[in-house]
This record gives sequence, C-alpha cells and structure tokens, in this order.
Amino acid sequence: MSKTAIGNFFEDFHVGQHIHHATPRTVTEADATLYLALTGSRFAVHCSNTLARMAGLPRPPLEDVLTFNLVFGRSVPDISLNALANLGYADGQFGALLYPGDSITATSEVIGLRESSHRDTGTVWVRTRAVKEDGREVLSFVRWVLVNKRNPSNPAPAEHIPELPEAVEPDRIAVPPGLRPRHFNRVLSGSMYRYDSYEVGEKIDHVDGMAVEEADHRLATRLYQNTARVHFNSHHEREGRFGRCIVYGGHVISIARALSFNGLANLLHIVAINAGSHDHPCFAGDTVYAWSEVLEKAEIEGHPDLGALRLRLVATKDRPCHDFPLKDSDGKYLPEVLLDFDYWGIMLR
Amino acid sequence: MSKTAIGNFFEDFHVGQHIHHATPRTVTEADATLYLALTGSRFAVHCSNTLARMAGLPRPPLEDVLTFNLVFGRSVPDISLNALANLGYADGQFGALLYPGDSITATSEVIGLRESSHRDTGTVWVRTRAVKEDGREVLSFVRWVLVNKRNPSNPAPAEHIPELPEAVEPDRIAVPPGLRPRHFNRVLSGSMYRYDSYEVGEKIDHVDGMAVEEADHRLATRLYQNTARVHFNSHHEREGRFGRCIVYGGHVISIARALSFNGLANLLHIVAINAGSHDHPCFAGDTVYAWSEVLEKAEIEGHPDLGALRLRLVATKDRPCHDFPLKDSDGKYLPEVLLDFDYWGIMLR
Amino acid sequence: MSKTAIGNFFEDFHVGQHIHHATPRTVTEADATLYLALTGSRFAVHCSNTLARMAGLPRPPLEDVLTFNLVFGRSVPDISLNALANLGYADGQFGALLYPGDSITATSEVIGLRESSHRDTGTVWVRTRAVKEDGREVLSFVRWVLVNKRNPSNPAPAEHIPELPEAVEPDRIAVPPGLRPRHFNRVLSGSMYRYDSYEVGEKIDHVDGMAVEEADHRLATRLYQNTARVHFNSHHEREGRFGRCIVYGGHVISIARALSFNGLANLLHIVAINAGSHDHPCFAGDTVYAWSEVLEKAEIEGHPDLGALRLRLVATKDRPCHDFPLKDSDGKYLPEVLLDFDYWGIMLR
Repeated sequence: MSKTAIGNFFEDFHVGQHIHHATPRTVTEADATLYLALTGSRFAVHCSNTLARMAGLPRPPLEDVLTFNLVFGRSVPDISLNALANLGYADGQFGALLYPGDSITATSEVIGLRESSHRDTGTVWVRTRAVKEDGREVLSFVRWVLVNKRNPSNPAPAEHIPELPEAVEPDRIAVPPGLRPRHFNRVLSGSMYRYDSYEVGEKIDHVDGMAVEEADHRLATRLYQNTARVHFNSHHEREGRFGRCIVYGGHVISIARALSFNGLANLLHIVAINAGSHDHPCFAGDTVYAWSEVLEKAEIEGHPDLGALRLRLVATKDRPCHDFPLKDSDGKYLPEVLLDFDYWGIMLR
Repeated sequence: MSKTAIGNFFEDFHVGQHIHHATPRTVTEADATLYLALTGSRFAVHCSNTLARMAGLPRPPLEDVLTFNLVFGRSVPDISLNALANLGYADGQFGALLYPGDSITATSEVIGLRESSHRDTGTVWVRTRAVKEDGREVLSFVRWVLVNKRNPSNPAPAEHIPELPEAVEPDRIAVPPGLRPRHFNRVLSGSMYRYDSYEVGEKIDHVDGMAVEEADHRLATRLYQNTARVHFNSHHEREGRFGRCIVYGGHVISIARALSFNGLANLLHIVAINAGSHDHPCFAGDTVYAWSEVLEKAEIEGHPDLGALRLRLVATKDRPCHDFPLKDSDGKYLPEVLLDFDYWGIMLR
Repeated sequence: MSKTAIGNFFEDFHVGQHIHHATPRTVTEADATLYLALTGSRFAVHCSNTLARMAGLPRPPLEDVLTFNLVFGRSVPDISLNALANLGYADGQFGALLYPGDSITATSEVIGLRESSHRDTGTVWVRTRAVKEDGREVLSFVRWVLVNKRNPSNPAPAEHIPELPEAVEPDRIAVPPGLRPRHFNRVLSGSMYRYDSYEVGEKIDHVDGMAVEEADHRLATRLYQNTARVHFNSHHEREGRFGRCIVYGGHVISIARALSFNGLANLLHIVAINAGSHDHPCFAGDTVYAWSEVLEKAEIEGHPDLGALRLRLVATKDRPCHDFPLKDSDGKYLPEVLLDFDYWGIMLR
C-alpha cells in the first residue's frame, strides 16, 4: 500500500460524507503582508490600524479573498486533487473576520454527485466550512468540481443534485461583528463614493492591469497550501492540455478584487458569494484586467452606516475593460474572460 | 462620471496645493522580512535584535529605503500616475525611525510647476511628507516628475520653479532618536571599517551583482502599493516605448543600497537625500551592480560615536563597477547607468 | 586596500581557525510564512498553533530546513564565497527549536584542509554552529567545500583530513525540548502512518512535482542572506560554466522536504544530518520531484510516543520518481538526480 495520498476519485465520494481536512492554519501578519505584495491591494482597512479602527475594528483583519483562498486550499487534497475543472460556487457566507493569530480548521460535506454521460468523470458538490478555534464560523461555501473516476467501469455513487440558491438572499447578509465605520475617513480610504453613489445596472471599468508570472502565482498558491498539480508541475503540464501550468483561479479572484479598489474603494468586505465561474484559464505572462457591475442593492437592518451591493466582478486577460467584455452573441463567454464572480459586498453608506 | 481614479494631469495642479494621500499603512515585521528577501540586505541593525540593541535601539527598525519606498508609494496615485518620468529628488530628510507596528500617513504639497516647451507635459515639484500616528515626521523629501497634460491646449497653471538646496547642509543632519552605537560589534556588523577609515574622494566597487526578474520587482512595488502602470501592465507596455515593463526606480535604489553593504557595512542609516536621478530604465533580466563615492564627511555634534558621510551611490545594469562607470566624455550618463543617488548616511565612528 | 569583502581563499584557512560570522539574525513569523509560500510545506506543526500544541510545543517553531538554510547563509561570506562546489555534509545535529523572536549567531571552525592535485583549489572542512542568545545550540553541522586558491603557486596550508562519522549514531539523537505529541491528531496532521508503519528498505515516491523559477529561488536564498554569486548574478553566470544561475542547493533540500510531506506527514522534525550531496545543479524552469527510502529505525529512550527514522531523501529534476532513480550501473548519480540527503527524523509513534 502506498503511503502517498493521491486524492479521492469520483467513486470515493458519497452524499452526506463528512471530510475533516488536514493542515489547520494559524494566520499571521505575514499572510496579510505577503498577500498585499502578491496582489497590490490597497483596501486600507486591511493594511492600516488607523482605518481599521475607523471601521470599528480592533486592527486590520485578513482580506476576504485571502480567507477564501486559505479555506479553499485546505480542501484541495481531499476534494479536487483529481479534478479537471472547478465548475462553480454558490451559497457562500463569510462569518467572523480572521485576524492575525487566529487559527482555522476546515471540513467539507459532500452534498451532491452526478456521473457524467461519458462515465469517466463526475461532478462533486461540496459545502466547505472553516471555523476558528472557538468554533465561530469564518466561511461556508458550496463549490462543485468535475472529478475523474479511478476507473470508468466502476459503478457510480447514487446521483443527487443539490438545490442551491441562485444568490444569497439579502436578509441573510451578516455584517461581521464590530464592523461599524462611523468615523470613516474617505480621503484615507481612497474614494468619496459610497452606497448611495452606486446604481443598479452601473458598470465600472477598473482600468488598471496586473501581469501574472509563474513565480508570483505559485507563491500565492503555495501560501494557501493548495497542492493542485496543474499550478506547480511544469514538467508534467508541458505534456498536458495547455502545454504549461494554469494559474489558480483563486489568484485571479484575488487580483480582480485588488484591481476593483479603483472604483470600489469603500467596498469594505465581501460577505457572500452568490456564484462564480472560471471561464478560461489564466497563464503566466497574461495581464489581468477587471470590471464590475452593480446587480442589486440592499439596506442592512441595524446598520445605517452600511449598505449591501451585489456585484458582478469580471476579470479578463490581455483585454482592457472599457467596453465591459463578457459574452458573445451566442451567450458564450468571450475567450478573454477569465472570471465571472457574483458576490455581496458591504459598502460604506 | 467615472468612479475610477485616473490620476491628476499637469493642469490639475497648483502651487500651494495640499494633497492628503489615501491608504495609510501600518508596517509589520513582515514588511522588513519580505524586503530582506527582495533585496538580500545584510545590514544587521535591521535583521537582528542583538545588533539593534548594540546600536541603542529597542529592536530592528525598518530600513531607510524601505521607508522611502513606502512613503513614495502613497503619493503615486495622486502625483505620478500620469507621469512620464521621475526627474529628480532633493532636500530629503529622514526623521523618526519606523518600527513594526507603526502607522504612517502621507501628504504632498505642490511647490513648483513649469509647462514644457511642447505644452503637452509639465514638471510638477512636490514635497511629500509622512508622519506617524503621534505626528512625528518619518520622512520629508522633494521630487519632481514630468506629468502629461490632459489636453495640450488647456492653459497651464502659473509657473513657479522652487529653490532647492544642492544638498542638505551637514548641520541639518539629525540622528534618529536612540541611535547610539556605543557597544557595537563590528565582527557581527560585517566590517571593521568606520567613519575614520573613509576619505573624501574614495570610490568603492561593491562587486556583487543582483539580477532582477518581473516577479520580484513587482512583489516589491506592490508591497509599496505603488500603482504606476509601467511596472505592472505587460499587455499595455508591450505596445509602449520600451516594449515591456520598467522596474520601479525605487527598487533599483533598494538593490543598490543592499549591494553597498559590501564596503559600507557600518553605514547605519540614510538620514538625508541630497539628489538623485534615474538615468536609464531597468528591465527584468538585468543584473544590477553598484559603486559608491565618498563626497563629503561631517562630524555630528553631540554624537562622538557617529559621523556623517555624504555618498554618491551609482547603480549600473549588466556592467561591473571596477572602473566606476558614470558619464561619457560629453557629460552624459553612460547607457548602463541606472541611478546616480546622492545621500547623507550615518556611519559608525 | 579595498573595503569590499571578497571572501577567503584556500590558503587563507588553517585548521583550528575560529570564524565569527557577521549578520546575526532575529527570526520572525514572516520567515516562517514566506518559507511556506516558497516551498508549499504542509507540515502542520509549523503552520498551526493547534498542531504545535498537540505536539507539546508552545507555538509553531521554524522548520528544520529553514533553520539549516539560515545558519548556512551566515557562513557563506566567510567560507564559500570562492567555492566551486559544496561537496558534502556530515555529523549535523539540531538542538533547541527556533521560534519567531529568537536570535541566532553563527560561528565556524576549520577542521580539515586538503589541497587538490592541480594545486589551484583545495577542500575546506568546517563545523558551523549556531546558538541562540541564551547560548543554547540550534544547529551544528560539518560541511566541506571546494575553494579556489588565490594563487596556485601559493603554498598550501598543512593538510588534515578530519574523521567524520558515516552517520550520527542513534544514541546521539536528541528530541527537541518540549516535543511530546501525546495528543496528536493524525487527521489534522494529514496521515495515519506513524513509526510502526514504516519498514527499513521501504521506498516512498512523493509523487508531486514543484517547478522552480529564478524569482522564487532567489527570494529564498536572499531570505537566508546567502550571497553566493552563482545564484544571483545572471550577467556574470551567462559567461560561466552553465550559462545561467544555479539554484542554491539548500533550496532544493527545502523543496524536497516539503514534497516529502506526501508520504511522511508525521515526520515531525529532522534531528540529525548524516550525509548529503548535491549531485547535479538545478536551474530555473526545472521541476523538482522527490522520493525517500527508510534506511534505519531507532527507538528513542524516554520517548515512547516518538521513534527515529533514518531516511534518504532524493530529489530529481524533470523526472518522476515512481522507479526511485538514483545511480547508473557504474554507481554514478543519474543526470536527473539533484540531491542525495541522509538524515534522522523524528516520527510520531
């Protein structure tokens, strides 16, 4: 028997299965600083004691997408080591903010399974949750991945397709404890615009572009202890589908979120993930651009100083976004589109 | 109206204008460690509690050029997003040392303006200052940049050329509070040479060379939250003047300062910036070399254990410095010269 | 007289010589985090307060190979700046664990010298030791390097070849103070396998591959303040033996150790280095694979919850390890073999 973990295959999963992921993680100031150096993020609540306190927080918490990527990374060895593609996200909710010194552990529950028509792969739906040492939930989200079967002739587990909300309902939006930006300084945060400045249907070109190199996407992905071979093994991928390594999709989300500062500087925190798709692969050498669209707005009871914006965040490669590229006339994503990410964020009001 | 900041153009500035920069920053040990990994610096006061205490300090402060780059980074979105070139520095003074946990905010005052003869650009002089939360000044310096006009036919703001000192006068040199290396160990610091060992006119070849890659100069520049497009947007720069991204000049200063350890290991701290020019662009793949020249020496009243050296620090690319390359017979910088930087440093005496 | 250090040459050494290395270092959480991002290590004792406490430790200590590389880095400017090759390691013992906030200083003693037959180089054996500020030893190891002579016609120092043990005897294995994994959770550590699961002669293919780029091996090597020119000076190395920079061998050990998680997740700590050779150079673009062989097992008196495994850790480039590549029929290392490293590790029992 090999002592080496090679990950689960489609027929290893069953609905209702609970998986405790290895490698709990204590996060540090260095995670936050390295994330900043990897993404160029300028959201001041995350890099400034001054702004964090103005937002009601004791000190800078980790950024939302950093938390997401750290939690995602825990789940990879069990869920997606044999995955061909990360198909989608749904029903994600961020809970308690993660501060340097906090420790997280992650678990996943298999909530859906469906064998593909060719019977060599199948879709696995999991809900992944991370909690702090005191048991408070940090993040819970559903993702589904296309996973190889060990052997196409093996019988498939019973099919079950989970019911998932199209989006998190606004009344489920939870403001992280403490976040109360009563004395916020919009000169220091970088933008005068706030909740009332944005209209449903409004689109924002984030203008800037950020190139990705092999060394930096790998630093990010190793920081998350995400072990998926396609990001790291150049020797193997040279013979693979694309002839080279693929940038981890979560790093594209990180870069797009960082780029969105320019236009959404007072979007304080992502609180829910409604949906998301990685539409085309990103490779080293590509320059990532991004644009956003305001899909919906919601007031938040008990929080007159905050409002919720539902936003679509789109990332492209080597294509500026002044014309908001998304789909072609057949409804297919344009080849330059990397990401279509639908989330609820909390905006200064 | 676009919510995206596109930076100020030449005609947006007026003399006397005060600009409060966004994104205050709390610095951490991780900034110091990442800086060390990005530059290879070996100045022990900055990486060793032992040496910091031997220098009279409670713990390692951030390096001078790291502080400079962090402050510079704050100012980029307001001052130099539309800049074609960073033309010079003058009258820079470092104040209180920056320690992990300190927070800085930065402001700039426009102190000079001059439209170019072609009327499509203009030179903007600004004095940028950074202070800690307690109001103590960390750094103040003047820089001037060549900035695009939004529209060449727009009227230019009133011309004013500021008077700037050729160099900071030695009697203005301020030793950072606490720096008193009475029990310094020169075996641990890496060199036996001190103030009295150096003579005016002496030149030092720092011998070593450090190659720069896209990933590492961008990590550094994002760490400083410097957003200038020329460093990050490969897609856009491919069609630009050089066909590729330019390394941020401040990263060249960082590398040159780190290389200068070999020959100036007991140069404890830069206290003043007299002048500086980025003479040719640095690109990924280049190897940076450096040499120094002692321009002037000054005793420091009340500090018998320290002396001030005025140094020229020259960085080159792909050219070793045993013959101290600088200018050609016409007085123009040689094509391999990246940087000519004139500063006052405090040396162990 | 040049103020620039150019390192010692073979004829500068004598047996019995003690060298105090410069640049003491205070380690931080950021060293640990950056190491994780550079290697992808998943050993949970080093990234999780939870697992560290389950192992009896107050908080995550630095990883063994990180400690090794930091100590090695101190010694480079004095020992191996003019080295042509790092020939071997022996008799290495790790002592007190290194925690963020600890400070180390390093010294070396020359314990052997032998001029080469061509008289232009010689082998220098040194024992390098690092201690914490309280004097406790962190690491002691012997390495030998082939060093250039300044001038082949110079007389060589007296020859002395030290006697070195083939391996550290099991009764010299010291468990780091505090390490007592009584309540260890093997779901969280990532593997059910422990001391009794491994047999002498067993080989483990670690399966995964990790590509190395110029930017990441240099970040690692600068983090260690290792100044060897061959890793950094692309301009000079372009004309050199390989036409490009060589990856620091210690970074290859780091990556191989990180890859060995997959198969040896409960190998808590390296306690002794028996031997090691860098068999072929690693370059940017190579993908590193690794395999291990169990050479010997030993119980540890007074530690019923731990056992010692003597392991061979082999790293290759661009060659998967399912067939455990090592040597050809002539007993020479295969061209893909980068590293053959022999160590004692402490395994959960």
